[in-house]
Amino acid sequence: MSRFWAADALLPGGPARDVTFEVADGRFVAVTPGTAAADATVLPGVALPGFANAHSHAFHRALRGRTHDRGGTFWTWRERMYTVADRLDPESYLALARAAYAEMALAGVTGVGEFHYLHHDRGGRAYADPNAMGHALTQAAADAGVRLTLLDTCYLTGGFGKPLDDVQVRFSDGSAEAWATRVAGGSAGGVAVHSVRAVPRADLRTVVEAAAGRPLHVHLSEQPAENAACIEHYGLTPTALLEAEGVLGRSTTAVHATHLTDADVTALGASGTGACLCPTTERDLADGIGPARALHDAGVPLSLGSDQHAVVDLIEEARALEMHERLATGERGRFTPMQVLEALTRHAAIGRPDAGALAAGAVADLVAVRTDTVRTAGSDPAQILFSATAADVDTVITGGEIVVSGGQHRLGDIGRLLADAIIPLWKDA
Amino acid sequence: MSRFWAADALLPGGPARDVTFEVADGRFVAVTPGTAAADATVLPGVALPGFANAHSHAFHRALRGRTHDRGGTFWTWRERMYTVADRLDPESYLALARAAYAEMALAGVTGVGEFHYLHHDRGGRAYADPNAMGHALTQAAADAGVRLTLLDTCYLTGGFGKPLDDVQVRFSDGSAEAWATRVAGGSAGGVAVHSVRAVPRADLRTVVEAAAGRPLHVHLSEQPAENAACIEHYGLTPTALLEAEGVLGRSTTAVHATHLTDADVTALGASGTGACLCPTTERDLADGIGPARALHDAGVPLSLGSDQHAVVDLIEEARALEMHERLATGERGRFTPMQVLEALTRHAAIGRPDAGALAAGAVADLVAVRTDTVRTAGSDPAQILFSATAADVDTVITGGEIVVSGGQHRLGDIGRLLADAIIPLWKDA
Repeated sequence: MSRFWAADALLPGGPARDVTFEVADGRFVAVTPGTAAADATVLPGVALPGFANAHSHAFHRALRGRTHDRGGTFWTWRERMYTVADRLDPESYLALARAAYAEMALAGVTGVGEFHYLHHDRGGRAYADPNAMGHALTQAAADAGVRLTLLDTCYLTGGFGKPLDDVQVRFSDGSAEAWATRVAGGSAGGVAVHSVRAVPRADLRTVVEAAAGRPLHVHLSEQPAENAACIEHYGLTPTALLEAEGVLGRSTTAVHATHLTDADVTALGASGTGACLCPTTERDLADGIGPARALHDAGVPLSLGSDQHAVVDLIEEARALEMHERLATGERGRFTPMQVLEALTRHAAIGRPDAGALAAGAVADLVAVRTDTVRTAGSDPAQILFSATAADVDTVITGGEIVVSGGQHRLGDIGRLLADAIIPLWKDA
Repeated sequence: MSRFWAADALLPGGPARDVTFEVADGRFVAVTPGTAAADATVLPGVALPGFANAHSHAFHRALRGRTHDRGGTFWTWRERMYTVADRLDPESYLALARAAYAEMALAGVTGVGEFHYLHHDRGGRAYADPNAMGHALTQAAADAGVRLTLLDTCYLTGGFGKPLDDVQVRFSDGSAEAWATRVAGGSAGGVAVHSVRAVPRADLRTVVEAAAGRPLHVHLSEQPAENAACIEHYGLTPTALLEAEGVLGRSTTAVHATHLTDADVTALGASGTGACLCPTTERDLADGIGPARALHDAGVPLSLGSDQHAVVDLIEEARALEMHERLATGERGRFTPMQVLEALTRHAAIGRPDAGALAAGAVADLVAVRTDTVRTAGSDPAQILFSATAADVDTVITGGEIVVSGGQHRLGDIGRLLADAIIPLWKDA
């Protein structure tokens, strides 16, 4: 049994004072407000549940600060992304992902959903172990102290009715059946449809069957061009296509969900499908502002992801959920601080409904955010998500294990790990 | 003569390597790429010009993380802002502003434009020295090591043809003439029209005359309601009204400039008026996204401000200039990294055209941003504004004087200064 204590905490019922957390076997045994610290380890600042990063492409971390020159169009970004994808192998991906996940841990992430599609070697050749890249990600997350939900992604076409290009062949198993066979031999915690662009209609049910009730993620309507092409090809919006093929449902999460019709929003809500918004990516890639509040009102559970990792600050993602709503609607207070916190901690979106709350019985994930920094000093602890950044995260406990303490990751200098993994990828690029 | 050296620097001509900076009497004597460090003080990371925070209301810092409860509407924000305004006096404002400016220094700000309207005591009574509040701000900036341009603000009415309310009387001198007389007895470096709501048309020329060529700032078209009321009252947009009364011009800066007609944009450009955007405030207050690129294309020099200080991270303001454009237009690369840097360092907007460049003859303002943190590791130094945050600022030199070193401000624990200044303001509020 270990014990922690915080002067302030955001519990399921709201803000509380003087809270003791008792932990055994990786779970909270008791969470008790109004207690003295006694012999407990005192945490600084305010205690929050661990953050869920529900949408990650770990290798995109190498693109940060590398795609904005020469005007930095979308095509600059895509060209650079493919440059990195083309250069990775299981060894270099392990190093990059370990560093990227450690950066997430420093930002308070305790669980990550990795939308994994970089499966094969150059030319699309399978590695000796065809799940070698997935295993590298699994090892990386374990090293970094982040709980991984590997979402093994089906990627078969380069667009509606279009073949794969030279880099995209690394993403494909050649057929949905071959993909499902490989997934069955790996250790994925869930699956994904890359998008309606990359998986033909006839193959969608194969992915649903492979999911077998585990989390199923799908990039949905990130840009208007996808919608237009889908309607031209199938006569359906992407959401309507997914609905028709049985892809929507309570274990499904639509990633982005930016450009939706009212009928799309209704379909997502009626089916219990979740939506994972990635605000810092959606602004970086000029996707636009999705209908977050309309989705919430329709009953869609919202989660958050740092996606391409242009920013790894889940507090910023959470704040941006509200800020982008404000920009789009001209109204403040579209979400309450507790609703923002719910999105930030929705581990259910990555198959862990037993995590994300400071409550007895839940997985013992806890983030202590300092309230004495230049960013947070003077704020009401209940509104900490509107002042803090990842740099204010002091302690991160994942499943009862201390991964970050005093703002330091147990692996040491993560900036160094990142530089060592990233800089060689750009050599002579 | 003092000498500094950085492995990377953003010079007026673009990114450079191995740069030595020679400083004497507060100015750069020489800036020389391709040199060895020799006996110079080695700065970590990449060297940038000092940042200009062209729009500040120092006392709003007390509102951070205090206005988002109960849904946090605009009216929540305004009520809380007036609560703080009502409680300040020259002593407490000195403490608050010193801490707020020190936080800015830590974020790389070397010059600030303080849009100052909290002039008088409760009930509108003048202090024994009628410029006591302005002097407090001047002292605060000197203590914090930030170069202040005090913009003494004329504020006369509570809306178009409306009287002042109980708190607003603290902002008013009763008449434009009385305002000008007080300003003449103070030490302001420039002036401001609070807005076309708060200064009647007949008084605008008095402010222009008092400016006498010094910087003249004005809140412009931050929200659609202001435009509608101005058109109803005067039959003119706010921009057209300012143009008609001679307020526009090369020493004038329009703050926000969010909701403009095409004719407004043309008028601002033709007159050489600048625009100061405050993206983190504009999203927090749900103002909307201003036409930044259209203004730039019309020849309007852009600058940036942290305004209400919900966020004090000028790098985030600079990045948001581009990111909000991306959200509004669906295109990346609306500004190049060097154009973003120009906005971030436009000290000319606050009357210091001799600052804001790493060049011989310029004021010796310099910011060293670390390139080895989890946020910046792996980035191209030329694109540092797309990866760094205020937390990555290591060294800040203002007019040749080292204000921040190793991420520490010369005044010590600024989080503590902020808490000591802010928490008493909310007692029993």
